[in-house]
Amino acid sequence: MTFRASVLTLYPEMFPGPLGVSLAGRALQEGTWSLETVQIRDFATDKHRSVDDTPAGGGAGMVLRPDVLAAAVDSAADGRPLLALTPRGAPLTQARVRQLAGGEGAILLCGRFEGFDERIFEARAIEPVSIGDYVLSGGELGAMVLLDACVRLLPGVMGAASSGEEESFDEGLLEYPHYTRPQIWEGRTIPEVLRSGDHAKIAAWRHERALEDTRLRRPDLIERHGGASQAPPSGAQRRDTKA
Amino acid sequence: MTFRASVLTLYPEMFPGPLGVSLAGRALQEGTWSLETVQIRDFATDKHRSVDDTPAGGGAGMVLRPDVLAAAVDSAADGRPLLALTPRGAPLTQARVRQLAGGEGAILLCGRFEGFDERIFEARAIEPVSIGDYVLSGGELGAMVLLDACVRLLPGVMGAASSGEEESFDEGLLEYPHYTRPQIWEGRTIPEVLRSGDHAKIAAWRHERALEDTRLRRPDLIERHGGASQAPPSGAQRRDTKA
Repeated sequence: MTFRASVLTLYPEMFPGPLGVSLAGRALQEGTWSLETVQIRDFATDKHRSVDDTPAGGGAGMVLRPDVLAAAVDSAADGRPLLALTPRGAPLTQARVRQLAGGEGAILLCGRFEGFDERIFEARAIEPVSIGDYVLSGGELGAMVLLDACVRLLPGVMGAASSGEEESFDEGLLEYPHYTRPQIWEGRTIPEVLRSGDHAKIAAWRHERALEDTRLRRPDLIERHGGASQAPPSGAQRRDTKA
Repeated sequence: MTFRASVLTLYPEMFPGPLGVSLAGRALQEGTWSLETVQIRDFATDKHRSVDDTPAGGGAGMVLRPDVLAAAVDSAADGRPLLALTPRGAPLTQARVRQLAGGEGAILLCGRFEGFDERIFEARAIEPVSIGDYVLSGGELGAMVLLDACVRLLPGVMGAASSGEEESFDEGLLEYPHYTRPQIWEGRTIPEVLRSGDHAKIAAWRHERALEDTRLRRPDLIERHGGASQAPPSGAQRRDTKA
């Protein structure tokens, strides 16, 4: 089944962009997922093809008109989840990414200027989502981030050796630190345990380091997760996560 | 002063990509900022130009070698802040974006595969940063997000009317909701107060809505900020934020 992405944007020329390269690009060429862009401006109704207007109540910038947005959204709507990228949205999580990747695809609405007329969220079933607590010039990079996160989880994209199961954030933990050759570099050696060949000891060490680094760097993750499991993962090694 | 960005990556062809379009693209053409990519593979030393090797201790995927990363980093280092995109990093915030935008630029290290050999963080002054709690196929989209967030704050990029001061997250609040024409759409009207012409009342309403929506959607922001100010901003309207 192909994961179908539709992106509603004023800048369709930005796509596929980075999503046409490397892992996501290969998967796009192989038909694991599809990408369609919809130009929001095509749904403007006046002769100037206006998509925005001044904010009610005054203030800087321009706001995207609800009627034009709704026409664009309605043209793409077919039961797939409909999300809008906005700093007012719920923070994107790996759990939500995993849900979306398990579905038919997504329709992503990208804002520009000061954002969307709020009535669009009352009138249509649109999930506002934020990729982080910073402000971007538009929703397009957010849409790319969301799609890249989903696409790498699609069957076959990462290959059998990297199933994408048991990753960072799934257990409410950061990933453990990685090491590779050379064994000694600038006088720094790879931790002894990783060279022991003792798989149980290695798994325990990695889990301990994941817990320790999460406590140190992201105590909020452990709190939110209701306290991460103290026990190392049973048997199989916990999978690494991507950079 | 030009904001100088250097991106260390295995996929320089991804750049400028979306950053070459719209707001960031115009600013790039006008020389408000500059963008240089460095191919990490150029710093490999073996005949196969290897940049990665298997993880010490076993596991799926490949890890970026510290010696190759260090050579790439050293080639670009000139006193600008040096950041690596990784889910193990500190979450990117608008406050950090603002700091970076006020400086000379940034050097951004993008990972791929399972990530970086941890020793690179011990041996070089690299700040690990994460754009959100999800896993991407590489650091390139994170670098683009970080640069877009910085570039829009550079002097002149948004124009005098949109100074980028008093934005979302700066006060520990989400932005208030926006409205524009048509005044009645699908039976839904713009809130009465926004049509009152009473600027003080409008500013108070917007602040109240920002507080209310933040409490409802992102109580964590208010906690982190040590409790947001209850008073509406004095005089001038609080600036809107981008979608």
